[in-house]
Amino acid sequence: MSLIVMKFGGSSVGTPERMKRVAKRIVERKAEGHSIVVVVSAMGDTTDELIDLSKQICDGIPPAREMDMLLTTGEQVSVSLLAMAIHSLGDRAVSYTGWQCGMITESVHGKARITDIDPHRVLKAIDNDQVVIVAGFQGMTEDGEITTLGRGGSDTTAVALAAAIKADLCEIYTDVDGIYSTDPRIVKCARKLTDISYDEMLELANLGAAVLHPRAVEYAKNYNVALVVRSSFTQNEGTSVKEVASMEQGIVVRGIAFDKNIARVSILGVPERPGQLAKVFTTLAEAQIDVDIIVQSGVMKGLADFSFSCSLTDRERAVNVIEGIQAEVGFREVTSEDNLVKVSIVGAGMVSTPGVAAKMFEVISSLGASINMVSTSEIKMSCVIDIQYLEDVVKGLHTAYDLDTADQVFVGGPADRR
Amino acid sequence: MSLIVMKFGGSSVGTPERMKRVAKRIVERKAEGHSIVVVVSAMGDTTDELIDLSKQICDGIPPAREMDMLLTTGEQVSVSLLAMAIHSLGDRAVSYTGWQCGMITESVHGKARITDIDPHRVLKAIDNDQVVIVAGFQGMTEDGEITTLGRGGSDTTAVALAAAIKADLCEIYTDVDGIYSTDPRIVKCARKLTDISYDEMLELANLGAAVLHPRAVEYAKNYNVALVVRSSFTQNEGTSVKEVASMEQGIVVRGIAFDKNIARVSILGVPERPGQLAKVFTTLAEAQIDVDIIVQSGVMKGLADFSFSCSLTDRERAVNVIEGIQAEVGFREVTSEDNLVKVSIVGAGMVSTPGVAAKMFEVISSLGASINMVSTSEIKMSCVIDIQYLEDVVKGLHTAYDLDTADQVFVGGPADRR
Repeated sequence: MSLIVMKFGGSSVGTPERMKRVAKRIVERKAEGHSIVVVVSAMGDTTDELIDLSKQICDGIPPAREMDMLLTTGEQVSVSLLAMAIHSLGDRAVSYTGWQCGMITESVHGKARITDIDPHRVLKAIDNDQVVIVAGFQGMTEDGEITTLGRGGSDTTAVALAAAIKADLCEIYTDVDGIYSTDPRIVKCARKLTDISYDEMLELANLGAAVLHPRAVEYAKNYNVALVVRSSFTQNEGTSVKEVASMEQGIVVRGIAFDKNIARVSILGVPERPGQLAKVFTTLAEAQIDVDIIVQSGVMKGLADFSFSCSLTDRERAVNVIEGIQAEVGFREVTSEDNLVKVSIVGAGMVSTPGVAAKMFEVISSLGASINMVSTSEIKMSCVIDIQYLEDVVKGLHTAYDLDTADQVFVGGPADRR
Repeated sequence: MSLIVMKFGGSSVGTPERMKRVAKRIVERKAEGHSIVVVVSAMGDTTDELIDLSKQICDGIPPAREMDMLLTTGEQVSVSLLAMAIHSLGDRAVSYTGWQCGMITESVHGKARITDIDPHRVLKAIDNDQVVIVAGFQGMTEDGEITTLGRGGSDTTAVALAAAIKADLCEIYTDVDGIYSTDPRIVKCARKLTDISYDEMLELANLGAAVLHPRAVEYAKNYNVALVVRSSFTQNEGTSVKEVASMEQGIVVRGIAFDKNIARVSILGVPERPGQLAKVFTTLAEAQIDVDIIVQSGVMKGLADFSFSCSLTDRERAVNVIEGIQAEVGFREVTSEDNLVKVSIVGAGMVSTPGVAAKMFEVISSLGASINMVSTSEIKMSCVIDIQYLEDVVKGLHTAYDLDTADQVFVGGPADRR
């Protein structure tokens, strides 16, 4: 008998019918002899509807604290209904909000991190042979304020809770049936992976994969939580995420990810004085703009050109922020581009295999695309290219790294987040 | 400067526009120099929509605990949106759920009573010059379970909180502009009362008045909370509810109430043995059926006939329950009637004024109606009559007790409950 955490996203419980189907699945899993804790998101479009409601009330940006009060009702509705659905099937269930199951977070609204979990109520209910239904995405500060964990928060709730109650397994049910070698909508012969390592999954998640939230993967890695990603609509086996994935057929690159939410900002003619660049990036950080790749493209007559990538949604703000310090830093001008995509290859074996990077450059240039920016880590390599080449490049890389016939990774599926 | 609790019902905040209007009203009240605590119900039909959702999930009766988890989200949505609306107007507000503002209740789901209030967060927020918005209708048990207070619960939240924080005034905003001498939809010359005593209000509320919940009035009386009932849509002065109301013009009867939700059940031919009646009413109590008036109508040859009144909605169940003990009690038969109404006169001066009861009988019989049941207390008298006489009798009593020209009480307005 195992202790299993099952996490269902919003689309899995989007209608009363789906809710009942999920209840049935839970009851079946329990009937196999397991103890079950369920983490669930808000039903379907509930969160968007609540946000719409707040926009009808508020002219400006609503206070983050009140937004958390508002949005957390979505999961509270889900958990109570799911508990009722399980009761209807003749099994016993009890629902808990984030604060009720001891999910303590830092005092930040909208994207709090979990700092502690006191799962005694959850454990007591399990001892009473009840299915425990926990509201994902939410927690409480030490002072009793309601917080949310931000995007992908329900994944994090599930993994953190699994760690806290020492669950044998944490199953993430979603609308795709596992992790793929790349987006199956782009590459027809993309294959579902049997397993993948935490580090590889973390890179993929950070590179734009919508299947698992990076924070959840990080948590799973840190606490060694056995994860499985599988479909809530089929009985197919999913993909295991664990410490070391099996290295089938000596495959080096396991997955190809891409992220279209990217813009390049260039700062031209920056005088080469100490501290000028630090000033730029400190200012961006203060404005909460995440900078990804940074490239210095050349120095002429003591003036340097710099580029960095950021998310498309931050593009305009980034340009404004930098223009605000033009006088102080003394650069010539700031420009920005969109219509870009960041394509990445990921694989734990890359660091020890020569020629992996060269092959990526080769594929991209053979397709006529130019590489705007490059960034590498031990287990991934990313190139920013024009978006028109996306499909050709991903297909080309998929073939070049022998993924077409192997059994590998994916990224970028439809969102079933929170 | 006063500390004021303002309570708004669901229809007062039924749409984003109404919500904004309420916010404006709160901000204006604060601008007069008062500290403001607001208690608010779920928006408009939210509660009914949530109940519908539960019916789509659950075949039978949903577990009461989960129903409380579900329904309390309605007020949480209201409080967060109202806080946002106040922020939008440039004022500071903070919303709290029932558990956040220390509303401790007994461990009963669906209709818990408040056992304790720890208002330290509310008081602290007031000290910080914030408008405090509290979710009505909800609380938490000592064990951290979410509970609801049942029908009229938001009135009770408001009054109990007003008592706990020693507020100077508790204003109940609703969709009528005060307490009337009787239902203005029946008697055109019904007058709004300037004031009414707790005891009179309690009788009226128990007799079917929908403006204030009896439990809230009881709480106000016990803790001597100064109450005002007024309209959320106009600036009219409302009706004060207090310990002793002014006795204008020596008026004895202050209000006329009526309750159509009534049925009469008769048990015929009950053998006069000790304990037989106790058996009947114990059984009814165990079935959670509230019995109002009980009348023994005569004994012949050792067999007695009994009648009692109960709510129309309990009628069928009451008959079934009694039939279930027919063999044991040995009565001849049980019958029941509807199309009845209970008309009541209420006034604190009744006990010391002779002839009040006689006048009621006189009016009713002069109109050709027969009196099916009678019940009296120190400050009220109720007669159950056929519903066809309702309008004539209420008008007749209103005139007979000199209410047409006085400034008196009412009952039975449209519901703005919870």
